[in-house]
Amino acid sequence: MKTTQILFTDVSSQTWIEEQLLNAESHPEFSQQADWSIQKRQLHGGSSEGVDLIEVNNGRLKLTVLPTRGMGIWNGMLEDLPLGWNSPVKSPVNPAFVNLSERGGLGWLSGFNELICRCGLISNGPPGTDADGNPLESELTLHGRIANTPAHYVAVELDPADGGWLRITGRMSEGMLFGSQLQLESTLETQLGSASFTIRDRVTNVGASEAELELLYHINVGAPFLEAGAQFAIPFEEMAPRDPRAAEGVTDYQTYLGPTPDYAEQAYYFQPVADELGVTPALLSDSRGKLGFLVEFKKAGLPCFTLWKNTQPEAAGYVTGLEPGINFPNFRATEREQGRLKGLKPGERYETEFKVSILNNSDSVDAIRQKITKLTQQSPSVIHESPHPRFS
Amino acid sequence: MKTTQILFTDVSSQTWIEEQLLNAESHPEFSQQADWSIQKRQLHGGSSEGVDLIEVNNGRLKLTVLPTRGMGIWNGMLEDLPLGWNSPVKSPVNPAFVNLSERGGLGWLSGFNELICRCGLISNGPPGTDADGNPLESELTLHGRIANTPAHYVAVELDPADGGWLRITGRMSEGMLFGSQLQLESTLETQLGSASFTIRDRVTNVGASEAELELLYHINVGAPFLEAGAQFAIPFEEMAPRDPRAAEGVTDYQTYLGPTPDYAEQAYYFQPVADELGVTPALLSDSRGKLGFLVEFKKAGLPCFTLWKNTQPEAAGYVTGLEPGINFPNFRATEREQGRLKGLKPGERYETEFKVSILNNSDSVDAIRQKITKLTQQSPSVIHESPHPRFS
Amino acid sequence: MKTTQILFTDVSSQTWIEEQLLNAESHPEFSQQADWSIQKRQLHGGSSEGVDLIEVNNGRLKLTVLPTRGMGIWNGMLEDLPLGWNSPVKSPVNPAFVNLSERGGLGWLSGFNELICRCGLISNGPPGTDADGNPLESELTLHGRIANTPAHYVAVELDPADGGWLRITGRMSEGMLFGSQLQLESTLETQLGSASFTIRDRVTNVGASEAELELLYHINVGAPFLEAGAQFAIPFEEMAPRDPRAAEGVTDYQTYLGPTPDYAEQAYYFQPVADELGVTPALLSDSRGKLGFLVEFKKAGLPCFTLWKNTQPEAAGYVTGLEPGINFPNFRATEREQGRLKGLKPGERYETEFKVSILNNSDSVDAIRQKITKLTQQSPSVIHESPHPRFS
Repeated sequence: MKTTQILFTDVSSQTWIEEQLLNAESHPEFSQQADWSIQKRQLHGGSSEGVDLIEVNNGRLKLTVLPTRGMGIWNGMLEDLPLGWNSPVKSPVNPAFVNLSERGGLGWLSGFNELICRCGLISNGPPGTDADGNPLESELTLHGRIANTPAHYVAVELDPADGGWLRITGRMSEGMLFGSQLQLESTLETQLGSASFTIRDRVTNVGASEAELELLYHINVGAPFLEAGAQFAIPFEEMAPRDPRAAEGVTDYQTYLGPTPDYAEQAYYFQPVADELGVTPALLSDSRGKLGFLVEFKKAGLPCFTLWKNTQPEAAGYVTGLEPGINFPNFRATEREQGRLKGLKPGERYETEFKVSILNNSDSVDAIRQKITKLTQQSPSVIHESPHPRFS
Repeated sequence: MKTTQILFTDVSSQTWIEEQLLNAESHPEFSQQADWSIQKRQLHGGSSEGVDLIEVNNGRLKLTVLPTRGMGIWNGMLEDLPLGWNSPVKSPVNPAFVNLSERGGLGWLSGFNELICRCGLISNGPPGTDADGNPLESELTLHGRIANTPAHYVAVELDPADGGWLRITGRMSEGMLFGSQLQLESTLETQLGSASFTIRDRVTNVGASEAELELLYHINVGAPFLEAGAQFAIPFEEMAPRDPRAAEGVTDYQTYLGPTPDYAEQAYYFQPVADELGVTPALLSDSRGKLGFLVEFKKAGLPCFTLWKNTQPEAAGYVTGLEPGINFPNFRATEREQGRLKGLKPGERYETEFKVSILNNSDSVDAIRQKITKLTQQSPSVIHESPHPRFS
Repeated sequence: MKTTQILFTDVSSQTWIEEQLLNAESHPEFSQQADWSIQKRQLHGGSSEGVDLIEVNNGRLKLTVLPTRGMGIWNGMLEDLPLGWNSPVKSPVNPAFVNLSERGGLGWLSGFNELICRCGLISNGPPGTDADGNPLESELTLHGRIANTPAHYVAVELDPADGGWLRITGRMSEGMLFGSQLQLESTLETQLGSASFTIRDRVTNVGASEAELELLYHINVGAPFLEAGAQFAIPFEEMAPRDPRAAEGVTDYQTYLGPTPDYAEQAYYFQPVADELGVTPALLSDSRGKLGFLVEFKKAGLPCFTLWKNTQPEAAGYVTGLEPGINFPNFRATEREQGRLKGLKPGERYETEFKVSILNNSDSVDAIRQKITKLTQQSPSVIHESPHPRFS
């Protein structure tokens, strides 16, 4: 049996499908399993007007992909377990309504509510003026443009191998005359009936000059994984708090508070350790160790990891971020000094890959914990108690 | 008989109706009166592309409501009498085309053409940097965001009581992670066959921290109410001109010029006086006293009133603003110092209400004038001839 | 036989046609020639979401007009000869996704990919603060707003005279309360079967005060007209390089390089000479003199001409601009000092006109070259070797 391709969007050929439902009825040849579906819609009204949305359901796990927001993943559901968080921004925001430059360069926050949101491509981290790169790209805004760049190409693949795989591929372009010219092709893949999905991204410098690349995955999780007493674990060589505020909590970095009035965010920077396959596991587990949100990322492409703790009250946005990246979300000039910017030559590609798995029983949570413990025992696991020059 | 509810927009349930006509044919049970209607459309082309528009006709009075522009009222018509003004901006502008930050923070003007336009919610007044509130909200732009915030929820209510009421309710959210989180629910209500309508707004702090609120209603009227010799009247305790330019005209504040080349705007700040029901009448009447545009506002929620005189030539925008508000449209830092910002605790609500009535005969104009005169005689009616520290 | 009018867009009457095909089948009375067409579409997906597009085909020459981008011409095709260039921006960008203020005022570049793109109306040239005009218009961004202003009126005319003419007219407004109020009506006209088209623009000051006007046509051509050894020619009185970088190449201004890594743009300013009809020819011809891209502009309305050489590698944007204008694209304050701003009184109109012809054989290229040579011989043809005070 062969793979079926369905094109949803291709601006270059003036292709765009407003609504479509793919399922066992429309594609009986794909799988005997009856309860998968892929549904393309468009949102209307409010700041969501015109947002393209794709609901992917592998029969067990549902994910909502947002082509209009750079192929971000708005939220998900494993059976009755919600994946994501309650942002004050309640629905997907069309980038046409987002002004990245406003609020002192923090306008990005006005559209931020995703489970998975990319930060890049020319920069991520705080806003400011970085005069050392391309002059057209010196006025940086929080976390760059890619999460607010609509995909100009979106295609679905139904691959019957191994019981059936669903794949969604999107392409976004960042570039203009006199600017750097980066293209991101992102593929999300999930196997029918599984509790996990994988994202493979490929950034290509399609321009004529070397271009700088930053990329970080803001993977944001709230309740029920996050709660008072929830735990975080990752094997690492070194870790440092981002700033004095984070330093206050460095000894408790593995444990979470419940929703806490007036809590100020804390961020920790990790140099991860990988297993023999080059993969680093990062685990958020609930207080009883019965639920786990696991991110496994290929360290070769994602050598940095940031833990973002933001246990504000629910109404303000109770959330933690597990954030593998090419770089740490410091100001780009810092990352350049530290050698963490990726310089891409014309035609050069850069690849990243990570897998998210939802663990819904103690056995699977324990197994990953033990793996992390083992990797940790083999690692230096140096913890700097205050911000460290190598990380900032 | 019971009230009928029709949902036009609800992003949270992916509901949106592109076009719909409600009238005596579709809802014969609502009213025996044949000539009412509510028509939902969407505009296309130019800077109006994608603007949702609702035409409300109570059989006598027509109003055009703009969900895409924060439930503003674009214009109206009482029989053959136009309500509104001729802005240089000729049609409703989709906020996607408005950059509030541009032009030194005056970008708001590029979408300004409404009969009723809200200014708020975190601020109104001139642009600038106000470092004393939420850091994410220190770069203020003219008159805030609410007029450029699309409603994420819009519903219509047909209430057969008392011969029939039409109600349109919209909800807008202002907020994001780390920002204040305000929700505005606005209801416009008009009785079948009447020459008036009422707006009831309710702002709720849905966030976890106290939030500052400013809100002012920019009610803008041109010809035929406004003309050379037109009159303004309001009962007040104290009034002061906004600035030296306004001070030039303080003795003539009640009288309007015709369209005047090179006229520079004048604004007057009033501390209103209310009647025994807590309502303040503000009246614009034409030169012969045969037409009146009456705004009656509940002073408890709207303790400030601003009169904006802008009798420029027709081609530039001949208009006056009757502007009840929580505050005066000074820079927010000033209003904070003066104690006129409303601080809303988490979960707290703030309500405002005003009624607009079109008077189309001398008797009704005279009756209101006499009421205002009587209230004025019972009031201090202090006029400051120059800007006064209590108002600026 | 009479002219047929088809209205595509008129916001004021709530008229808009999403898709329409006009051709010999739909309008057999217009022409016996079978292969003309005018096709209205709307793009979807990516940053092209919502862009209106009109494909005009006179049976030989195809042009793609963009109402959403100020009636710019995206690209064209003469038989199998492409007209335009390969911008890093691959498809038409909805202005809703363009922030002109970002990137230090260079945000305009994020939507720049047209064959013909207007720069104006209140300004063109580099960004900056020009405090001497209207205060609302002192923060200037690169090349102004008109290329990112959607047309609020679009109509097609089928005129059977002389074998048949196709005309597309669009209207854009630039203006707001307290700003200058300019309206541009643009008509593109092409005769069935011809290899040329004419653009006639009329700017009207519809406001009540005098307004300043700048307007320049960024006519952008790449391969196959542009190549190593391609030639440029124009008859002129005086020419000066824009800056020291352009001065480096002043003796070679007529000749083009092939795609050149790290090439930095060069611009030359010409005071053109016109023929006895008041028309100046400007010609780009390929290296063998077999292909020509000819711009003939009425000097009375377009007294300035700028040559933009940008022979970067293909992937970066290999392109030259032939740019007739009211002014040179210097900062507006400079152009005001030099007396090149056009001041329009209330109600006053300003008209421009130019014709583009594609020459696809040596004879037609030679004929134009000879004409230019003759005009040149009758002209002073002064070349300043470095930037000259009269031009900057």
